[in-house]
Amino acid sequence: MSAIPVANSILAVRKAVAAARTSGLRIGCVPTMGALHEGHASLIRSAKAVSDFVVTTIFVNPTQFGPNEDFTKYPRTLEADCETCAAAGADLIFAPTAEEMYPPNAFAFVDVGTLGEHLCGPSRPGHFRGVCTIVMKLFQIVQPDVAVFGAKDAQQARIIRRMILDLNVPVQLMIAPTIRERDGLAMSSRNRYLTPIERSRAPEIYRVLCEVRDRALHGERDVARLESALRGMLETIPESRLDYAAIVDDETMTPITQIDRPALIAVAIYVGKTRLIDNVTIPQTTTI
Amino acid sequence: MSAIPVANSILAVRKAVAAARTSGLRIGCVPTMGALHEGHASLIRSAKAVSDFVVTTIFVNPTQFGPNEDFTKYPRTLEADCETCAAAGADLIFAPTAEEMYPPNAFAFVDVGTLGEHLCGPSRPGHFRGVCTIVMKLFQIVQPDVAVFGAKDAQQARIIRRMILDLNVPVQLMIAPTIRERDGLAMSSRNRYLTPIERSRAPEIYRVLCEVRDRALHGERDVARLESALRGMLETIPESRLDYAAIVDDETMTPITQIDRPALIAVAIYVGKTRLIDNVTIPQTTTI
Repeated sequence: MSAIPVANSILAVRKAVAAARTSGLRIGCVPTMGALHEGHASLIRSAKAVSDFVVTTIFVNPTQFGPNEDFTKYPRTLEADCETCAAAGADLIFAPTAEEMYPPNAFAFVDVGTLGEHLCGPSRPGHFRGVCTIVMKLFQIVQPDVAVFGAKDAQQARIIRRMILDLNVPVQLMIAPTIRERDGLAMSSRNRYLTPIERSRAPEIYRVLCEVRDRALHGERDVARLESALRGMLETIPESRLDYAAIVDDETMTPITQIDRPALIAVAIYVGKTRLIDNVTIPQTTTI
Repeated sequence: MSAIPVANSILAVRKAVAAARTSGLRIGCVPTMGALHEGHASLIRSAKAVSDFVVTTIFVNPTQFGPNEDFTKYPRTLEADCETCAAAGADLIFAPTAEEMYPPNAFAFVDVGTLGEHLCGPSRPGHFRGVCTIVMKLFQIVQPDVAVFGAKDAQQARIIRRMILDLNVPVQLMIAPTIRERDGLAMSSRNRYLTPIERSRAPEIYRVLCEVRDRALHGERDVARLESALRGMLETIPESRLDYAAIVDDETMTPITQIDRPALIAVAIYVGKTRLIDNVTIPQTTTI
């Protein structure tokens, strides 16, 4: 059906982007690991709304997986991904091999220090260094005017924003809202790992997040009490194991004791063997 | 006399470069810490030979100095530097403040891991992370087509080459040869720290480097013997203290035992209180 071009080499994607830029087109970029779902499609549509030539990158980046994580079994669905990209309005797919992206003897990396040590940091050592490095590489290869990331990966989005600011990367960052299933479960490529019974339990995560956010919005400012409620409710999900559930400063992701600034409620929880993450923000409000 | 424009803000330099690029000019960049001498002038002329619009950056980067190094007393000679830049053919100076380059809460950095641990690494912890980070920032701000660095800072040049390759930075790197005083001393902003008597002793460094290179070119392949001769000769310089003197793989800067590939002879030595570095390469040769 659709015939979206796929570039496998850095040279090819640079050539295609250069041609688009010469034609006066504004370049958008949506970095993904493939296994695309409606959440990714929404990122591509967001990119297309603010640029003319959208490059979707599809690369399961080995350096952001830990040794005991799901790198080898991570879903790879390139053919379906091409359809999704084309339908959502992407103009080019960049799907390189690991050899193309990481030549032997590669030493350089980008990192964000302590910013990667909160939330997912402790259980995923090296993850955000891997993310920063591959995103920086993709930015240097595609040189987009605008890049779109999803709000679902809250810490990733904040870290990339920090990286762009700190290293003066000439790209505009757009964080697009989390797309959810009808029952509230945040869309994720990892949802397909869930058994039917786990899948039926997973929407509870978002329900709990909303409940805790509402308590904050209705006047509960004490973070210890809110976190205690958050953890208590999440622990009732059968056959689940909480990785973390925290309420932190929305920008720096450092712990707070009072809801006295924009805050992020972030959760990582194993449902069965599948690690799911989700989050909601508590906007700055004034109590009446 | 000369009236070379000086941009102090990131916005201003980006604007000037964008205008030059729109006019079809090829952008060159020569990152410096100021206190410019004939060596820098030669880098600027090299840049001008291969590009149309040369930006010289002048920034004494605090993050590449250790706590006991000469950051505060490092020479700052902006007025003279402007003359040097103009005479050498630069088109724009970018001379930002530390506040402009490092906003508070900057977390992100670029590093090259073990590549920064050889040679100068042990005595200057954090130095190459500081260098990589500031150079990456300058590349993102200026977005040059070509950047020129001096061969005198051998490890820096190799690390930046690695960073550009590994992170796919779209810039062409040129390493320009070391410029020397008539007596052989490599030009350096730090030479002005030398007392007249120290200055008279300093050319011995290059003489020794050449002597050891010649022994290698005349057939001595054993690195241990060559290094022993190198150190022995350097230690005869009065009131000097050797930091390191090593013969390493020219690309990876790792130790070698035989001259069986392109090699680098690199030295850091205190002459009085002033730390001087210098190096020569041993090209790949075949013994007859």
